[in-house]
Amino acid sequence: MASQYATIGSERMRAVVRRNKQLVCDEIAELEPAAGQVLVKTLACGICGSDLHALHHMEHMIDLSRRAGAPDNGFDPTADTVFGHEFCAEILDHGPGSTRALKPGTRVVSMPITLDGLSMEALGFSNRLPGGFAERMILSEQLILPVPNGLETDHAALTEPFAVGAHAVAKARLEPKSVSLVVGCGPVGLAVIAALKAKGHGPVIAADFSPRRRAAAERLGADIVIDPAVESPHERWEGLGVPKTRAAQGMMRMMGNPIAQPVVFECVGSPGVLEALIEAAPAGAQIVVAGVCMETDRIEPSIAITKEIELTFVFGYTPEEFAATLGQIAEGVIDVSHLVTGKVGLEGVAGAFTALGDPEAHVKVLVRPND
Amino acid sequence: MASQYATIGSERMRAVVRRNKQLVCDEIAELEPAAGQVLVKTLACGICGSDLHALHHMEHMIDLSRRAGAPDNGFDPTADTVFGHEFCAEILDHGPGSTRALKPGTRVVSMPITLDGLSMEALGFSNRLPGGFAERMILSEQLILPVPNGLETDHAALTEPFAVGAHAVAKARLEPKSVSLVVGCGPVGLAVIAALKAKGHGPVIAADFSPRRRAAAERLGADIVIDPAVESPHERWEGLGVPKTRAAQGMMRMMGNPIAQPVVFECVGSPGVLEALIEAAPAGAQIVVAGVCMETDRIEPSIAITKEIELTFVFGYTPEEFAATLGQIAEGVIDVSHLVTGKVGLEGVAGAFTALGDPEAHVKVLVRPND
Repeated sequence: MASQYATIGSERMRAVVRRNKQLVCDEIAELEPAAGQVLVKTLACGICGSDLHALHHMEHMIDLSRRAGAPDNGFDPTADTVFGHEFCAEILDHGPGSTRALKPGTRVVSMPITLDGLSMEALGFSNRLPGGFAERMILSEQLILPVPNGLETDHAALTEPFAVGAHAVAKARLEPKSVSLVVGCGPVGLAVIAALKAKGHGPVIAADFSPRRRAAAERLGADIVIDPAVESPHERWEGLGVPKTRAAQGMMRMMGNPIAQPVVFECVGSPGVLEALIEAAPAGAQIVVAGVCMETDRIEPSIAITKEIELTFVFGYTPEEFAATLGQIAEGVIDVSHLVTGKVGLEGVAGAFTALGDPEAHVKVLVRPND
Repeated sequence: MASQYATIGSERMRAVVRRNKQLVCDEIAELEPAAGQVLVKTLACGICGSDLHALHHMEHMIDLSRRAGAPDNGFDPTADTVFGHEFCAEILDHGPGSTRALKPGTRVVSMPITLDGLSMEALGFSNRLPGGFAERMILSEQLILPVPNGLETDHAALTEPFAVGAHAVAKARLEPKSVSLVVGCGPVGLAVIAALKAKGHGPVIAADFSPRRRAAAERLGADIVIDPAVESPHERWEGLGVPKTRAAQGMMRMMGNPIAQPVVFECVGSPGVLEALIEAAPAGAQIVVAGVCMETDRIEPSIAITKEIELTFVFGYTPEEFAATLGQIAEGVIDVSHLVTGKVGLEGVAGAFTALGDPEAHVKVLVRPND
């Protein structure tokens, strides 16, 4: 099956292509920037949990996304796709009519969206433009942000996943004395912990079965780090001043000690986790659902009602959150130096996808298509 | 099987008792008010949807409620219970040590809770104290509120269900230009509509399959009343200035027209309704879940995530909301005059439970135990 990427001229470049639910190294058509676009050399691009899921289940993902009202922009999940939406790149050339405010050689990051005429391509989930698992990409000049001086390329590539955490925290109704619990310390949970601590919140409880992920949570500033195989994190609420039942909370209020809003961040995204949290969280808790569960899930609404639980489902980030996250990483407010646990060239991507199935193996693997 | 209600002396009174999942008219022990309590004559008491459910499924209800952290106060769902938690009553006598601020003969309402020594009895879900389907009840002096001058007893009895609506609306993050959709116009949905209009909100869309309920919704002030068999209420969002997709909402924002928070009130409480609303509501909608679904329900978390839906599960009301609702009914801000569609004596309760299975038969049926 031939690549579906548009061919301009006869030049080719290397990319990892999703084809027949496999990842293959292949050549695809060279790119040429159109009006308002820039051609970039991909320096580093993270592998995301959604890439792992999409490798085998992209058809179902796209079906769910269309049921959620996503515009049908002609993306065909059965056709060739080049993944990669967490990237840092270097400007090579500008399309016609560009302001050229950033010169060739400038390192940039961007939200993974490219404006392409009247349509908007989601980089990493497009048949027309490749994502970051390719030697070069096309970005929109108006969306690129220069990497602040001195920030390492590999760290700049983490802007996108950490912006997800900033957005989840922005959607939480945290009060100054709120206790937060982050369930799951994969990249999403770690980004939430970083965003909480960057805003000065605490105590932050973090829970994960993996020692490696717990260590990363601790380095990012989690105040209490728990192995759920040893202890339920929900045992900690009472000791931190958050009674779990409405009756006990009411008693505290009557005694003039109102409790601050307890917030739980669901960063696992597997069926059953949501209901377990609804049952275990304190009454009145806000559960910010940042883990993307792609399967049908079951809940007991009457328990959520009796406890007056709030489920806040969150997705993506705003341009402002993306830019602010880049700044926080560059300024060292968020220390990402310990999170890249593997780097591969294009030929190593398929193997990295397999390795990432083991939560103990890695925190974040970066693809460096030009190494 | 003998009544489990405590016997004081040999006097008896009449009540409708839930026994072996049946409603039977029987005599139970006469009541005597303890310290801080008042003995009241039950004048009118509404039949609630939760009573209908509890008749057959109380064991499951109690199991769910204990999983939700409700204190185990010794209530035995297999033992005799006298339902009824939406009442208006008349003071007969005071227990020892009462302030007697309200004289015998005063009509009162109360949240359905009686303090009984160190325990708190949930009236209508207690083996120790009867709810309102009995000739007399025991209330707590500190919780009773006098019925303001002139308000009809039958209307005062609607304070409790309308307080549920006030609470649901208080939990909604409504903005001045928010559009609200109330799905289901049974007593809960009608109470939500009344509370929305009492606060000056609009437009309020109301949807129900029943012509009788739609008529009631219209009388309570719903601006747009829809039969979902004819038209999906979700067809109306666009015309009221609320685009349904994130993309269209983003476009409006870019043009300087931010949309106000869309709010959906789920007042049905059947499995499947929540997911249907997650899929049909505008992106970013807050869904206030006031209908109590007692069965396990299924949702697609990834759709809720992509749309950034918020599910706010609500329950009960505060003492302030209860008191304010009584005031609004008394002042005519909420016109409940058309909502009582049936009245029965104790011997008519079992039949009324059957009749209420048909949504077309009634809005609210009151039990008048002393008629």
